This record gives sequence, structure tokens and C-alpha cells, in this order.
Amino acid sequence: MSQRLLSPDELEAALRAVGAERYHNKHRFHARQYGGKCTYEEVQAWALNRYYYQATIPIKDAIVLTRLTDAEDRRQWRKRIEDHDGLKPGDGGIERWLKLTDSLGFPRDYVESTAGILPATRFAVEAYATFVRERSPVEAVASSLTELFSPTIIGERMSGMLANYDYVSKDTLAYFSYRPTQAKRDADWALDFVKTHAKTPEQQQAVIKALEFKCDVLWTQLDALWTGYVENYRSPGVWEPGTVATPRSRAA
Amino acid sequence: MSQRLLSPDELEAALRAVGAERYHNKHRFHARQYGGKCTYEEVQAWALNRYYYQATIPIKDAIVLTRLTDAEDRRQWRKRIEDHDGLKPGDGGIERWLKLTDSLGFPRDYVESTAGILPATRFAVEAYATFVRERSPVEAVASSLTELFSPTIIGERMSGMLANYDYVSKDTLAYFSYRPTQAKRDADWALDFVKTHAKTPEQQQAVIKALEFKCDVLWTQLDALWTGYVENYRSPGVWEPGTVATPRSRAA
Repeated sequence: MSQRLLSPDELEAALRAVGAERYHNKHRFHARQYGGKCTYEEVQAWALNRYYYQATIPIKDAIVLTRLTDAEDRRQWRKRIEDHDGLKPGDGGIERWLKLTDSLGFPRDYVESTAGILPATRFAVEAYATFVRERSPVEAVASSLTELFSPTIIGERMSGMLANYDYVSKDTLAYFSYRPTQAKRDADWALDFVKTHAKTPEQQQAVIKALEFKCDVLWTQLDALWTGYVENYRSPGVWEPGTVATPRSRAA
Repeated sequence: MSQRLLSPDELEAALRAVGAERYHNKHRFHARQYGGKCTYEEVQAWALNRYYYQATIPIKDAIVLTRLTDAEDRRQWRKRIEDHDGLKPGDGGIERWLKLTDSLGFPRDYVESTAGILPATRFAVEAYATFVRERSPVEAVASSLTELFSPTIIGERMSGMLANYDYVSKDTLAYFSYRPTQAKRDADWALDFVKTHAKTPEQQQAVIKALEFKCDVLWTQLDALWTGYVENYRSPGVWEPGTVATPRSRAA
């Protein structure tokens, strides 16, 4: 199907429509989590698996950095790596995620080994890194645009989890209190980049597809959590609730 | 954990133990399928999604071919590509898989586009191609060793499907009647290669891990089919039963 050239505003509307249909705030695991229906073990599994996503983001962003040919673009993009890796030891988004897995009783070396994550988590996250390596730079940037939609899901997740789970606190969820400001700055820049650089109908359709792909990466991770820890149908070798982590009764 | 060097027979036993624990003949979707419990639409979804796996296998094998430094090894490995791509148009494993999707009412251009497959199918299959590109040649070869276990699952699948689904026949399942002989020849060669080339405890553990990884690739595909078409919880954009394919009542 041939497509006409969209105006920048029409392209933005098309991108926002992708989020409205496919972002993982519409997944049943998210509703279960912020609605207070998750067991402690489900929250543990979510934090353990999502660590691999968090830890891969600055590597993914470093790959994108290798694809940007303009120094000013790279300066802007570099902020993302700084946010996740921090400016000094003990700082940054990955460290804040580890504070969350600490609070859920996991030893750091186990979390960092990613030995217990679900295979589908690994495959989805690796697909994201591969995507930004193999596709065009504008598609790589566009795949980050799920950040346009993250303030809403973060708001629901934080208020819902604080209201429903006595073992989480603003302190253990500190990762999320930093993200909306960072995500807004990054998403504004990336949206402007995509609207400027996707100049043909083919490029515009490719960036829309890139955002659909990224929504699939997030959605697939929640599907896998549901199968593994809500249905408790797990492939051999993944983290078994009741093992490795300090049980809730003895957790901080 | 340090490991001692295993004898070739011990290594073979360790590899066979991986299959006994993790091969997808133990997955609930397989039991449902050969037990006659799948709906027509579930069988359609299975064939449609697995097409992407089948179509990627000779590409995966071509990547392995780039990693083998011995001409005799490459001559042996090349047979796999010949089996899947055929020696002339209308021949080979992919063509036989398309005869199966034909019989289930799918237009070939839709199947070949892979537009309707589940994201987790895509991520898992791409992870397999990435694995053989990035790991050592002996790990790449070892990841093919699920073929050691395939004669059993193929036997169950064929007899179970022929007994329980009137819309399949020996003709539409022709793909599977070719595979056991090919798989035995290939698995015997690959097992010998792995037993010869994995010479240190580290290499032996790596080839065991490679086979675990490959079991995860197969298992994840059945997990995704279960979520998408048994539970009917699908991410947006994937094939919707009742669309695209000729309905059963009008199928050949």
C-alpha cells in the first residue's frame, strides 16, 4: 500500500496512536500490578526480569550513539547513558533499580548475573539492541519514543504500588521518581528528531513500525511474566519463587 | 563452580539430559496438539508462526557455514541448507511447510510476509540466528542438537494429528516424514563434532548451555502460541483467527 507524505503533526499523531493502541499500560499484568492484585513473588519476578531491560538500555543507547553522525545529536543522546549509568558509582538508574531488587530480598550478584530471568525477557531485550544496530538511525531513535507514554504508566504504577503493597516505599521506587522528567526531555528531543529526519513516506512508515516494534518488546516481557509467575507455567532454569531471595517475612 | 573435564560419553549424557528436561515435547501446547485438543485456529496459528522458524533455519545454517573453517565440515553442514531450500524450485523443507499452510487456507504471500506472527516468535527465532553468529563455532553447532530429540516429538505429532484432525493428512504433513532421517544424519554428525571440539571444561559447559538456549528458543515459541491462541490474549497486530485464511468450511 503506497502512503502519502504526512505533515510533521500528522506523523506525531500517528506515533501517538501507536502508543494508544499498543503501549504496555494496556497489558493485563500492569492492571494487576497497580491494582494491588500481584503477589509478593510476582513483584519480585517483575523487578528481577526488568533489571535485564534496565541494564541493557545504556548499552542500547551506546549503540545508537555509534549511529548518530552529528556531534550535537550525540551530546543530546549521551544524557541518556549518563542518566542510567550515573555520573559516579552509586548513582544512576541501574543503581536505583538494584535498590528495588535489594528491597525485594535479591542478592545483587544474582540479579546482575541475569541467570534467573525468563528466556522471553532475554530474547525481547536483545531484539531491541539488535534493532538499533541494524535499522536506520531515524528508526533507532523512533524506537525510543515509548517514553512519550511513560509518564502515565509510571504515575499509575507508583500510586498503585504505594497504596497496595506495604513492602514498597517512595524510597524503594526511587527509580520511577527520576524518570518522568528525564523521559520528557528525551522524548521531546527524539520526537523532534524523527519529525525532522523522516522525510519520505517510506521513512515515516518505517518510524511508525519502529515504535510498534518497541511496544512489542515491552508487551512481550509482560506476557512472559504472566505465563511464568501468574499462571506459574515456567520453563526449566528460571528463578523459582521461594529460592535465592530473602523471603518477605525476613526482608527489610 | 569449577567443572572437571567430562569424557565424550559423559558429555553426550549431559547433552541428552538437557533434552530430557527442557525439550518442547514436554510443553503443554505439544500435549494439547497431539492429543487432539487444539482448535482448527490453534493449528493454523502454530503452522503460521512456525513458518518463520522454518524459513530462518537455512539462513541460520548459512551463518554457521561462515564460522566453519574446515571444507569437509562445511560440505557436511551444507546438506542442511539443501534439505530446507531444496535442489530446485518446488522442493525442500520450506516448500513442504508452505504446503501445510496452504492446506490450512493461508495465502502464501501472507505466510511469507510473516506480517501476522507473534512478536515472541520473531524475537526467539532471531535470537537463534544471533546466537550462531556471536558464539563460538562449537556452541553454534551444539545449538542444533535439539535434533537428537526430534524423532520422538515428530512421531507423536504425526500420529496424534493424523488420528485427531480430519483436515490434516500424510500429504499435508509431508514436511515431517522427511525430517527424522535428515535429523538423525545431522545430529549424529553434530554430536560427534561437539564431542571432538569441546575440549576443556569451559567449552563443555558452554555447549551444554548452548543446547539449553536452543531448548528455550523452541519452548518460548509454544508459550507464545498458548498465550495468543489458547488463552486468546494477543498483542495488537498479530493474525486474528477468522481473517486472511480461507475458513475451514471452504478449505481444501
